[in-house]
Amino acid sequence: MTETREPALSPPGGHYTHSVRSGELVFTSGQLGVRPDGTHTAGLPFEDQVRQALANLLAALRVSGAGPADLLKVTAYIVDVANWPRFNAVYAEVMGDARPARTVVPVPELHYGYLIEIDGIASVAAPR
Amino acid sequence: MTETREPALSPPGGHYTHSVRSGELVFTSGQLGVRPDGTHTAGLPFEDQVRQALANLLAALRVSGAGPADLLKVTAYIVDVANWPRFNAVYAEVMGDARPARTVVPVPELHYGYLIEIDGIASVAAPR
Amino acid sequence: MTETREPALSPPGGHYTHSVRSGELVFTSGQLGVRPDGTHTAGLPFEDQVRQALANLLAALRVSGAGPADLLKVTAYIVDVANWPRFNAVYAEVMGDARPARTVVPVPELHYGYLIEIDGIASVAAPR
Repeated sequence: MTETREPALSPPGGHYTHSVRSGELVFTSGQLGVRPDGTHTAGLPFEDQVRQALANLLAALRVSGAGPADLLKVTAYIVDVANWPRFNAVYAEVMGDARPARTVVPVPELHYGYLIEIDGIASVAAPR
Repeated sequence: MTETREPALSPPGGHYTHSVRSGELVFTSGQLGVRPDGTHTAGLPFEDQVRQALANLLAALRVSGAGPADLLKVTAYIVDVANWPRFNAVYAEVMGDARPARTVVPVPELHYGYLIEIDGIASVAAPR
Repeated sequence: MTETREPALSPPGGHYTHSVRSGELVFTSGQLGVRPDGTHTAGLPFEDQVRQALANLLAALRVSGAGPADLLKVTAYIVDVANWPRFNAVYAEVMGDARPARTVVPVPELHYGYLIEIDGIASVAAPR
């Protein structure tokens, strides 16, 4: 198991690592819309929160040598399922041709008042 | 990574693939009780929704050559934890001898007004 | 796939196995604060529930030969996100140097009135 950290990500706010790799598999922690400097996008429109959370997800993957095309599964936790179409639109734009398996889970609330949190599982071609 | 689609499943309603395989592992998207023709079971009794969601989960696995016995982990999202016993009863009937690890997660709501959503991780014996 | 049970854990209360191993990967079911004798900690303070749920998670891993350091990903479901700091404190104490990827998911409720449920994915060095 290799634990990695990404300077482009704000340091973990709790007892976890942003991205853990074991063999070909990469697991990320749930990513909120925290900017690299630690400030929050929680007060901004939903779309901005999604963009920052996805940027953080991709940054967490990157340190393990993985990109969007390597994602096998994404789980997105959203407050208010009415936000589903807006989430899907931003997600499609950011992910492009990558269409991993995905589950969108409505939740009553998220940490710091965020409306979106995202984690992922990826596979990279060979252990390094 | 092999992305697959199952004709017996309604096409994905968003930017995702129903089932993704990487090596021996298969990841499915969250499956709602959508019929293959795209119509919804959301207005039907809870048990009917569970049966359709499980049928979709198994269909998603099937295109990757996996069946119930190959499931390692299932996560079921349900509205109202009081539905737990009814979920477990239908699940046991459908799964039979297969008893993968499972987490049942109560949620405040689901897309299209569904009361159940299910995803899974499976392992098939050898990559193909 | 090897299905395992842990005598130190209360038998599964539904159609699932506490811990499933496939090759190097171990998947656990969602663990509540159920004592080995089947009695509940649901009425006790939040911290006690967290300790018992984590003890059960580690017991479930142990039967597959995995320990805290083998965990790749943990997902914790908590009622009331205000409990996040208290969860993180107990979790850090129990996990010690192990810092797997982690997602904390606020939920509206949990089975038996619990305030915390935890599952995990681990990797053990070689199949046995």
